[in-house]
Amino acid sequence: MAAISYSNCPTSSSIRSNSYLAPSPSSSLSANSRRPRVFSVSKKFRPQMISHDSPRYWNVLNVQDGSVATAESPLATETPLIKLKDGLTLSTSENESSEAAGFDIKETGSSVSITVVGASGDLAKKKIFPALFALYYEDCLPEHFTVFGYARSKMTDEDLRNMVSKTLTCRIDKRENCSEKMEQFLKRCFYHSGQYDSEENFSELDKKLKEHEGDRASNRLFYLSIPPNIFIDSVRCASTSASSSKGWTRVIVEKPFGRDSESSAALTSGLKQYLGEDQIFRIDHYLGKELVENLSVLRFSNLIFEPLWSRQYIRNVQFIFSEDFGTEGRGGYFDNYGIIRDIMQNHLLQILALFAMETPVSLDAEDIRNEKVKVLRSMKPLQLENVVIGQYKSHVKGGVTYPAYTDDKTVPKGSLTPTFAAAALFINNARWDGVPFLMKAGKALHTKRAEIRVQFRHVPGNLYSRSFGTDLDRATNELVIRVQPDEAIYLKINNKVPGLGMRLDRSNLNLHYAARYAKEIPDAYERLLLDAIEGERRLFIRSDELDAAWSLFTPLLKELEEKKIVPEFYPYGSRGPVGAHYLAARHNVRWGDMSAEHTKDD
Amino acid sequence: MAAISYSNCPTSSSIRSNSYLAPSPSSSLSANSRRPRVFSVSKKFRPQMISHDSPRYWNVLNVQDGSVATAESPLATETPLIKLKDGLTLSTSENESSEAAGFDIKETGSSVSITVVGASGDLAKKKIFPALFALYYEDCLPEHFTVFGYARSKMTDEDLRNMVSKTLTCRIDKRENCSEKMEQFLKRCFYHSGQYDSEENFSELDKKLKEHEGDRASNRLFYLSIPPNIFIDSVRCASTSASSSKGWTRVIVEKPFGRDSESSAALTSGLKQYLGEDQIFRIDHYLGKELVENLSVLRFSNLIFEPLWSRQYIRNVQFIFSEDFGTEGRGGYFDNYGIIRDIMQNHLLQILALFAMETPVSLDAEDIRNEKVKVLRSMKPLQLENVVIGQYKSHVKGGVTYPAYTDDKTVPKGSLTPTFAAAALFINNARWDGVPFLMKAGKALHTKRAEIRVQFRHVPGNLYSRSFGTDLDRATNELVIRVQPDEAIYLKINNKVPGLGMRLDRSNLNLHYAARYAKEIPDAYERLLLDAIEGERRLFIRSDELDAAWSLFTPLLKELEEKKIVPEFYPYGSRGPVGAHYLAARHNVRWGDMSAEHTKDD
Repeated sequence: MAAISYSNCPTSSSIRSNSYLAPSPSSSLSANSRRPRVFSVSKKFRPQMISHDSPRYWNVLNVQDGSVATAESPLATETPLIKLKDGLTLSTSENESSEAAGFDIKETGSSVSITVVGASGDLAKKKIFPALFALYYEDCLPEHFTVFGYARSKMTDEDLRNMVSKTLTCRIDKRENCSEKMEQFLKRCFYHSGQYDSEENFSELDKKLKEHEGDRASNRLFYLSIPPNIFIDSVRCASTSASSSKGWTRVIVEKPFGRDSESSAALTSGLKQYLGEDQIFRIDHYLGKELVENLSVLRFSNLIFEPLWSRQYIRNVQFIFSEDFGTEGRGGYFDNYGIIRDIMQNHLLQILALFAMETPVSLDAEDIRNEKVKVLRSMKPLQLENVVIGQYKSHVKGGVTYPAYTDDKTVPKGSLTPTFAAAALFINNARWDGVPFLMKAGKALHTKRAEIRVQFRHVPGNLYSRSFGTDLDRATNELVIRVQPDEAIYLKINNKVPGLGMRLDRSNLNLHYAARYAKEIPDAYERLLLDAIEGERRLFIRSDELDAAWSLFTPLLKELEEKKIVPEFYPYGSRGPVGAHYLAARHNVRWGDMSAEHTKDD
Repeated sequence: MAAISYSNCPTSSSIRSNSYLAPSPSSSLSANSRRPRVFSVSKKFRPQMISHDSPRYWNVLNVQDGSVATAESPLATETPLIKLKDGLTLSTSENESSEAAGFDIKETGSSVSITVVGASGDLAKKKIFPALFALYYEDCLPEHFTVFGYARSKMTDEDLRNMVSKTLTCRIDKRENCSEKMEQFLKRCFYHSGQYDSEENFSELDKKLKEHEGDRASNRLFYLSIPPNIFIDSVRCASTSASSSKGWTRVIVEKPFGRDSESSAALTSGLKQYLGEDQIFRIDHYLGKELVENLSVLRFSNLIFEPLWSRQYIRNVQFIFSEDFGTEGRGGYFDNYGIIRDIMQNHLLQILALFAMETPVSLDAEDIRNEKVKVLRSMKPLQLENVVIGQYKSHVKGGVTYPAYTDDKTVPKGSLTPTFAAAALFINNARWDGVPFLMKAGKALHTKRAEIRVQFRHVPGNLYSRSFGTDLDRATNELVIRVQPDEAIYLKINNKVPGLGMRLDRSNLNLHYAARYAKEIPDAYERLLLDAIEGERRLFIRSDELDAAWSLFTPLLKELEEKKIVPEFYPYGSRGPVGAHYLAARHNVRWGDMSAEHTKDD
């Protein structure tokens, strides 16, 4: 059973139960709660569940009292809360699964082995190992866990530890026992050198893993931090030679998930040769961001937003992503994909789907993903006329010369790959018909920002229209959810300027996270890794979601490439191509981040 | 015409016109605007308009080019923009009246004489003279103005100036030329000693006023800062002997406007012997408060509030007034009225009517007052069972003994006068049927505060209900408009607490005035005096409003007195009688200012 020392982790069941039974009446916080841990097990996505001879495919099911199902056949296992019924999506009720018999890996005697495939890569060093350490620091990892780095380079365990230790930080400086905790964490880190396509090398890894796992039920998570062209080979090897025989095996894959519908479908079918749908965790780290997680909370737990969330009140919605730097010598990968594939088709579209979906039946992963797919399938594929693409050019400012995209030596000369794109999308359903959903993403812009802006309609029959001068657009309400940096939510409202007379202005009803919440916001990777360990699929992308997302963008991407559409050039560090304004204007929209009244806080 | 030096006043037409024609595109403020100056002249309320022999009753009508209508008969006057039509409420369009030919007293050669009747009283010293000076400082008074103090005491002009100068302050310390401006202002202040019921004394005043007015068209404003029992005598004298023969004459009266329906009706009919409805300016200084003024702006210029403002989304509305001191030796007046008459029947009920009214046809005074009357007339008279009364008793705290209400030597022994009251009111119309409107007002409570709290309903089918524990009431949205002190607007929303896991709390979307607006907020009296000078009646109480307000409270007040209902005693400095909680609970309401999670910022 979980010792009391594990209670630091905010998702641990001991924390939850305590606070649920005895919420503190004087606290300004609502009763603590964890994410519901509901295991939706659909037959469709778990064909292996009824095959007795594929032990590597199954996950640990919901169990009581912390014991782990270790029988070879999941159907033979006693799983008191989940009974398979043909063709039905099975899930325990929220109470049953997470209150009464919550599956908490820490309460079991089982172990988790996390293998970072591509351990010497940038992402691994900058994000994955630090996130694992943060989870360890917060007592969110199970008692028995092991981290393995796997890559081609020859390294010892000590080499890996040295490498990893350089990027580990305690989330908040000067926290207690940080270096001590680091030491302990690094002792759990090991390295195995091998080829990504060698079953033999993975078998060696399997042996090492088993040594660490001992007799315990062993769950295994593989994080593929490698180029997409070797995804399937690695999955084959991991699956054939290193999947768990006494627990679940899950694989996290990072974008790119193909370049278009066809290549994505090929990748998916390749993965599915070796993995069941419920073993594939397609990560979109934007879905792990705090304010994206909060989007559904805001919308579904606040009555005030309920009547507003439709075409009747919302005039347009904007999803804006900007970076204030270019490819800076790392354009090789990017040039093959471009900003639309890199940001829009995944991150922004995922947020759009979360924003626009109908109320799901529950917060279960499958219920939410079902609603997201419905949104994507209600959308028309993007038309070229609704897209503006751009590419940054060189710019001299303050004596400094900022390079053009094509100055990057890793970028082919004359490349037409867009580093900026703006697009207008539409959802053809009863809620959103006619409402433009605008996206804008770019590199080498004047600011670094990711935000959602919801612009409301004009007030019909506005009594105060005189007070707004000629530009009624300046008088509409706007809800802004700033995902990064400086997380914030604010609502622009019209307000009387104090004083004699009747002058109105737009003020912000503001919630600035840094001011409200002392605690540092965890990195998206921490949340997502923990979810993968816990089998929470809500924030991962299902195959049919991915298919639907690609069908929206593939025709456009092909047209851009076939017609060799030349991007509009914009200076490095500028606000992007002017064309984005005309695109917006054509849909009667004004970019919220570009208005004359726009300031840092806007 | 107005010199450029007048442009400091935020309602001056030069400011308005400039900003209307050339709004600053880079300003974060919407185009400047002034309050619409629309003169609604209804025959019903201006019977004297068609009487040729009652020159003292008419006001200056809307005129062009700054000239003033000075003919004896208003009907004979050329008033290009207003033509009287029998029985119709006449008003020019907003554009006509305030843009094209706005009546701006400063642009005319006319003068205004402001006579403060009861000049030596507390209100005059603390509020009226300082407000007049502030208006002068802000260039809001016309070029030719004179201030007269009128009272029984023998004083010289110099005595008055000495007295007045002690309470004058520049709104913001260390402002430019403040003492110079004070000198200039005091030179315009004079004194006349006289009895309040002496036509002879008022005739003497009239002579002095004429000396100052010279040949100019002269408008006269009388501010009755005297006890109500001499209202009518003074009005008779002022009207008969000192009303303007070449301009308008208006009278500002302060509460109490009677003790019940009968005495109020008697007072009104007494005033109407000498004044037309449009000459009577019944002041309710709460209506001049910044955030009360903003209530309509918030509601009618922000689309996001439009769908919310009804029984469908609002669960209850609370109007809360508390003072942290008792009568402190000034209980003589209060004891005759009690907290219900002193605060509820006027201030809180007025705010309620503004809050709950239907959208008016325009922002014209009569349109707004028409809607307010409709609200009041849709309400049932208060039932005793929906009221809790209290009286503060002595309390020892930190070694200090705080007195009981009846310890006040000016209060009769054994007085049953309530110093606290809570009430539940209902509006029987389509918008508000079944929504409790709660009021609470008290002296000697633990805090000083005036606020409006709008509590929204539960989220139907809340996906996150588990996250709120057992008390769903803690999860509802609340809009708080804090009128005083520290003006603020905030909206309580449910938000995900940053971090792993899914814990929700209520955070505030906050607009704190002091942080947002550097400028000091003017005192309510400044706004109201300026409105009276400008003939803007929106914030003054019309006779039928007053009648409707009294009919709601009179039966209850009589019952309380006839049955000698004993108030519930509460300790000085406490949160008031417990009964208020039971009253709220009976209507399924929780006081927003008393919740366990309540902090200073709540």
